[in-house]
Amino acid sequence: MERYDIAIVGTGPAGVSAAITAKIRNKKVLLIGDGDLTKKMRQAHEINNYPGFPKVKGEDLARAMSEHLKQMEIDITEVKVVNIYAMGKYFSLQTTGDTFEAFSVIIATGVMPGKMIEGEEALVGSGVSYCATCDAPLYKGKDVIVAAYGKEEEKEVAFLAEVAKEVILFPVYNGEPEGLPSNVRVVKEVPSLIKREGPKMVLSTSQGNTYETDGIFVLRESVSPGALVPGLATQGAHIEVDRQMKTNIKGLFACGDITGRPYQYIKSAGEGNVAALSAVDYLAEN
Amino acid sequence: MERYDIAIVGTGPAGVSAAITAKIRNKKVLLIGDGDLTKKMRQAHEINNYPGFPKVKGEDLARAMSEHLKQMEIDITEVKVVNIYAMGKYFSLQTTGDTFEAFSVIIATGVMPGKMIEGEEALVGSGVSYCATCDAPLYKGKDVIVAAYGKEEEKEVAFLAEVAKEVILFPVYNGEPEGLPSNVRVVKEVPSLIKREGPKMVLSTSQGNTYETDGIFVLRESVSPGALVPGLATQGAHIEVDRQMKTNIKGLFACGDITGRPYQYIKSAGEGNVAALSAVDYLAEN
Repeated sequence: MERYDIAIVGTGPAGVSAAITAKIRNKKVLLIGDGDLTKKMRQAHEINNYPGFPKVKGEDLARAMSEHLKQMEIDITEVKVVNIYAMGKYFSLQTTGDTFEAFSVIIATGVMPGKMIEGEEALVGSGVSYCATCDAPLYKGKDVIVAAYGKEEEKEVAFLAEVAKEVILFPVYNGEPEGLPSNVRVVKEVPSLIKREGPKMVLSTSQGNTYETDGIFVLRESVSPGALVPGLATQGAHIEVDRQMKTNIKGLFACGDITGRPYQYIKSAGEGNVAALSAVDYLAEN
Repeated sequence: MERYDIAIVGTGPAGVSAAITAKIRNKKVLLIGDGDLTKKMRQAHEINNYPGFPKVKGEDLARAMSEHLKQMEIDITEVKVVNIYAMGKYFSLQTTGDTFEAFSVIIATGVMPGKMIEGEEALVGSGVSYCATCDAPLYKGKDVIVAAYGKEEEKEVAFLAEVAKEVILFPVYNGEPEGLPSNVRVVKEVPSLIKREGPKMVLSTSQGNTYETDGIFVLRESVSPGALVPGLATQGAHIEVDRQMKTNIKGLFACGDITGRPYQYIKSAGEGNVAALSAVDYLAEN
């Protein structure tokens, strides 16, 4: 398998900045994320404090950054990263598409909106899955529950419904679920607790009801950092980094909102640059 | 005296970014530095990794940032800061012009080019001065030596020559000193050591000669951080900061090249934003 120098996960200002700097340093870069540079940036009404761009609309800043990536011939791979494993000399990135390998990794996935479901993280890989594509085969002819945190997850739900016997969908987003197969039952309650009871999984809701099933899929825009990388030191929703954007895992760096406040575009872009140069140093030394 | 909320020293990308963010947060901002946003930025041939500005010339990025400051009605005060004193509830900034007061200070002066002269820092205020305007009156009718690290310091030399009896100028820069009064003697040697001997100051040069005088002026584009702020924790040429850009002195923040490598425009701009928001938090708490 082709192995990249630096895999960058996330295409907000932090990931874009990291990719640009890594490419300038002649590294083989894999940039994974939203090809339109994140809904969050595109929908920003007006950004006033990105120096050089007075009163810029989010979509215009995103366009300028897209143009910058294009001029530097940096492509975006549009998959979702589900797991990152430190393999010693390199990292393996499990995604909703292919599996990738890279000598170093920069996490720039932003802060996960909302909280995790109680019990969720402890049961990942043991009844809880973040990846329909990866784990659907385990539930052939069985029942599954999906807690979906965005309308764009509905295609994953449809795919699960092709494989599973019955799907209960908890849509944790605005808007009505549409065009789903008949074996999908929509329950408009808010998931609050996940437990294992023998061979079965049980989901409780804030409305006080419980639902039994064989497996639970939690589908969000991004996976929480602790669940993404086994052994990664985190503090709440944030990854712990030093001033060089190093995490506690050698060869693994982080930048942008996921490393903590303030949540600001220019702060993220600055950190992306530092993370990339730290990765370049790491590659030279290892 | 009018007291500012936040005084920002330096007008590279770090200082500009800090000023913009502080102004957005409705703070009364004093921005001190080069009105043309530093020679270093203007002379940068091409910057490739400031996201959103592919292949931008330094002068064009500086122009975009100047325009940004103008749109936000942020003025630049063109003086050199010589000393910053923590007064408890506020800071006093001694400059080559007026003295200013501010509740918090952000240092964004960049890295000082070149090394200090041995013995220099220990004798500041005791025979060594960084400010002709401030300290010339002390040397009326006496002899002084000037170690000047830029052609633009020649006007300070001329001013000193009006007051002092004789001036020996050591020009540590390219180009010939011009238009200086007849009581200025130019010696093209490199200052290497400063000592006090009783009431006299002695400067030695790398060429092996020594020169005795009453006072020594060391004039550079910026003052070393340790000499600038008494008690400031530094590491070599850099100010020690945490991830929030806090220094060891309450209410004093730093950002950009002076906080350490990498020396990159986007890293500096990102840190300026963080420093400003930390200063805003500090003002709210104190």
